Amino acid sequence: MRFDHVGVATRDATALADLFGGLLDAPVAHEETFDDMRIVFLELDGGGYFELLEPDAGGTIADYLDCEGPGVHHVALAVDDLPAALDDARDLGIDLVDEEPRPGAWGHEVAFCHPRSTGGVLVEFVEH
Amino acid sequence: MRFDHVGVATRDATALADLFGGLLDAPVAHEETFDDMRIVFLELDGGGYFELLEPDAGGTIADYLDCEGPGVHHVALAVDDLPAALDDARDLGIDLVDEEPRPGAWGHEVAFCHPRSTGGVLVEFVEH
Repeated sequence: MRFDHVGVATRDATALADLFGGLLDAPVAHEETFDDMRIVFLELDGGGYFELLEPDAGGTIADYLDCEGPGVHHVALAVDDLPAALDDARDLGIDLVDEEPRPGAWGHEVAFCHPRSTGGVLVEFVEH
Repeated sequence: MRFDHVGVATRDATALADLFGGLLDAPVAHEETFDDMRIVFLELDGGGYFELLEPDAGGTIADYLDCEGPGVHHVALAVDDLPAALDDARDLGIDLVDEEPRPGAWGHEVAFCHPRSTGGVLVEFVEH
């Protein structure tokens, strides 16, 4: 598995894209509205992204911001075969948030592992 | 700047290294005791690491675990010139935890930005 992105919950994706764009020298590679969120991908030199997640009204990220405040929400790994990755995770006893791949941002297929079985880290698998 | 690693606070680096080693297909690349922590680096395919941080007794990570529980502690970006990266960060108005580079794990020079000025994300710069 390869590093794909760090997902960051924020109340202002525009301001954070400007800040990280300058600080990390990471230009905007993609933005869209998906699942009631404004999502901005900043591309790092050498590969991988920061994914900025700004909720519109309600939803998982809004709840996360209310509880935890802004910051790292998840870490995503790129896989070549998402169903096989989920089978492997199940074989390791990992609890899955998504038992099957589902559509994610940027047209990718995604699935999340539950952080209770991955050391408190919300791990996303993404198949481009 | 390039993705270098995600730092994960944990109370059991051995167990988490076993779990992530299998889940992410990421073998142990390096381990050491540094600054009263057991630190394990797992190497991802395609580059970059998961850095597992287990406190011995007390210290920043022990405090973090007490307050936040286990999970993602910081995100590290590799830079070619750490003093220049810190100057650029200062020019952007970023508050720095470390005004000057200091020795970090694995013999690298490191410096952290304060999460209050980086969207709640604890950003580390690392020069190999």
